[in-house]
Amino acid sequence: MTDRQDAVYMARAIELAKKGLYTTDPNPRVGCVLVKGQRVIAEGWHRRAGCGHAEVEALAKTDQAQGATAYVTLEPCSHHGRTGPCSEALINAGVARVVVAMQDPNPLVGGDGIRKLRAAGIDVVTGVLQQDAEQLNRGFIKRMTQGYPFIRSKMAMSLDGRTAMASGESKWITSEQARADVQRFRAESSAILTGINTVLADDPRLNVRLDQEVEQPVRVVLDSALQLPLDARMLADDAAVWVVTCSHDQDKIRRLEDAGVVVLYVEEKQGRPNLAQTFAALAQQQINNVWVEAGATLNGALMNTELVDEWLVYMAPCLLGDQARGLLHLPDLTRMAERKNLQMTSVRQVGPDLRLTFTVHN
Amino acid sequence: MTDRQDAVYMARAIELAKKGLYTTDPNPRVGCVLVKGQRVIAEGWHRRAGCGHAEVEALAKTDQAQGATAYVTLEPCSHHGRTGPCSEALINAGVARVVVAMQDPNPLVGGDGIRKLRAAGIDVVTGVLQQDAEQLNRGFIKRMTQGYPFIRSKMAMSLDGRTAMASGESKWITSEQARADVQRFRAESSAILTGINTVLADDPRLNVRLDQEVEQPVRVVLDSALQLPLDARMLADDAAVWVVTCSHDQDKIRRLEDAGVVVLYVEEKQGRPNLAQTFAALAQQQINNVWVEAGATLNGALMNTELVDEWLVYMAPCLLGDQARGLLHLPDLTRMAERKNLQMTSVRQVGPDLRLTFTVHN
Repeated sequence: MTDRQDAVYMARAIELAKKGLYTTDPNPRVGCVLVKGQRVIAEGWHRRAGCGHAEVEALAKTDQAQGATAYVTLEPCSHHGRTGPCSEALINAGVARVVVAMQDPNPLVGGDGIRKLRAAGIDVVTGVLQQDAEQLNRGFIKRMTQGYPFIRSKMAMSLDGRTAMASGESKWITSEQARADVQRFRAESSAILTGINTVLADDPRLNVRLDQEVEQPVRVVLDSALQLPLDARMLADDAAVWVVTCSHDQDKIRRLEDAGVVVLYVEEKQGRPNLAQTFAALAQQQINNVWVEAGATLNGALMNTELVDEWLVYMAPCLLGDQARGLLHLPDLTRMAERKNLQMTSVRQVGPDLRLTFTVHN
Repeated sequence: MTDRQDAVYMARAIELAKKGLYTTDPNPRVGCVLVKGQRVIAEGWHRRAGCGHAEVEALAKTDQAQGATAYVTLEPCSHHGRTGPCSEALINAGVARVVVAMQDPNPLVGGDGIRKLRAAGIDVVTGVLQQDAEQLNRGFIKRMTQGYPFIRSKMAMSLDGRTAMASGESKWITSEQARADVQRFRAESSAILTGINTVLADDPRLNVRLDQEVEQPVRVVLDSALQLPLDARMLADDAAVWVVTCSHDQDKIRRLEDAGVVVLYVEEKQGRPNLAQTFAALAQQQINNVWVEAGATLNGALMNTELVDEWLVYMAPCLLGDQARGLLHLPDLTRMAERKNLQMTSVRQVGPDLRLTFTVHN
C-alpha cells in the first residue's frame, strides 16, 4: 500500500469519525475503515458513549477481516471499557496491518494499544493525516493532556463593534444563516457557558435546535451569587444545567439542586468565580469543548485570562452607532501600548455576515 | 477580428490606461492600442492633462496606421482641446476600424467622436469591455453625468470598532501594509477631504508619499468657522489646500487666501457646511474622486446623507476596549429598527488587517 493510498483511506476514516461530531461526548470522535485487496470491506464510526467503538463497529460488518488493513483515526484502545479493548478485537480478527492517525492523547494509556498490536505481530503505521485527526478531537486532546477543555467564545456584532443598543435591544444583529452556523458549533460542544447577567437579561435557552441527532450540551452558568431563577427557560427542558458559583449559601444551593441543577463550587476572584478553576472543574466533569456565549463583561474577563483557544466573531454589515453597547468590557485599557493583539486565523462569509476567528497573539 | 481578439486588445488598452491612474486628473484615464495584421504596431496612454491623448500618443509612434484597427478605452474626442480632436487624427492616419470600450460620458459631446469616425467611413464597434473601462473612470463619469465626484470614505478601526483611545491616541491601529494601501487610494484621488477637528487634533499632511509620479490630490478641509491654523502641516508643501466653509468672516478668509488657501463657500446646514453642496462644488472644480479621511462626527454625518459611494474599513486584529472611541457618531440611532444596513462588496486581507468595502444598502 502506498503512502498516498494510506492517506486516501484515512481521509475516509476521518469522514466517518465526523459523523459523531454532535454525539460522542465525552468520548472522542473515531472512524475506522477495513481494506483488503484495495477494496473497502467494512466501515465503522463511534456514535455515542455506550455504543461500539469504531473498530468494533467495522469488524462486526465483515467476516473477511483476516489479512486486512485497518485504518483508525485514533489509536485502538487497550483497556477493558464498556466495549472491550479494540486492539484485542483487531488481533482476534486476524488483521495484518493497522494504520493509525494519532496516538491516544491520554498520557496514562497512550501507546499501549499500538504496543499490544505490534506484540501480536501486526504491522502498525502511525501519524497518517495526524493533524486532521487531531482537529477532530481538540477538546478531548486538551482535556487529556492539559486538564482543560478546548474553549471557544462566540460574539456577534455590527461593523462598528456593537452588540446591542444602549437599551439592551439586540435581536437580531446577525443573519439567520449566521445563527444557523452557531447552532452547528453549539452541537459540537460539550457545554455552552454564559454569565448570570445574560440569563437575567435575555433568558436564553442555549440549546441545540437542529434536525438531527445531537447530544445536548450542558448549559453552564457562571453565577457568583446564585441568582439563577428557577423559572429560567433553560430549566424547562431535559438537558443539564450546571451552575458555577463561589457562594456558600446552602439554602440557594439546595433550591437549585432540587430543581435539578448541578452546583459546582470554585474559588472567588474579585467577586466572581475563578475562571481557570471553572474550566478545570468542567474538564474534571469530562467536558471536552466549551462554547461561550456571554456578554461584554465575561468576555472581557476571559480576554484578560487568555484561557480561550479561539474567538469567533460574527460581524454583520450594519451600524448601531456609538451610543450602542461595546463588544468587550476592558476597563483597564487606556493606552495603545496596552491594546490586546490577536491573530486572525480565518475569514469566512456566512450569508451576508462575516465569521472571523482569532487566537490570542503570542 | 473575432470578439475574443477584440477583448484581448481592449484589455491591453485598459492596462495602458491604468498607467495614468495617479496622474491624469481632472482628465479621464485612457489607453490606446493600434493593431495591424494581428500585430500590435503602437500603444499610447494619456499621462496627464496637457500631454497628448492616448490615440495621439499611439499614432505618433508609427507610420503604419493606414488600415489598422485602433482600440480605445474611451470614445475619441471630437472637440478642439489642448491636443486637437483625436477622431480627426485617427481619420487622417487612415485607420480602418475603431473599437471603443465606452462612449464619452459628457452628455454634451458623447457620441460625437463616434459619429465623426463613421461619417469618414470607418467601421466603429462600441461596448467592448465597457464595464472594465467604466471602473477606470468612475469619478470622471459621475462628475459628467451627475455633477458629483465619486466619493470614498476610509476608516481604520480595531476589531471592536474603535478608532482611538479615549485620550485620542490612535497611532497606529492598522499595519504598515494597510497604510501603504491607503497611499495608493490617495494617489488615485483628486481630493482628500477631512474635517477641521481632525486637522486640529492630528495635524495630518494628507499627501501622497509614493515613490512614483503622482498628481498630488487637493486637500479639502471642512471648516465651518475657518479655524485652519496657518502653520498646519498641510500648508507647508506645494499641493493645494482648499477650505470649504459657511463662514463669511472676511478677515479670516483673506488671511487664508494670503496663505495660498482656496476658500469655497457653501450654505450652512445645522452649523456645518452643507455636504451635498460641498461635493457639488468640488465637482464644479473638476474634482473626479474624493477620498475622505475623517473622524467619527463627519463620517457619521456622511453616513446619514448617503452621499458616499463606497466605504472602506481597515480592520486590525486588535482590541482597544469599550472605553475607546467609536467608529461613527450616530447620536439619533437608539433602536435596532433604525440601524444602518450596508452591503459588503469585498473582503481582502492587507497584511495582518482586513480591508472591507461597503455600499449603503438600498
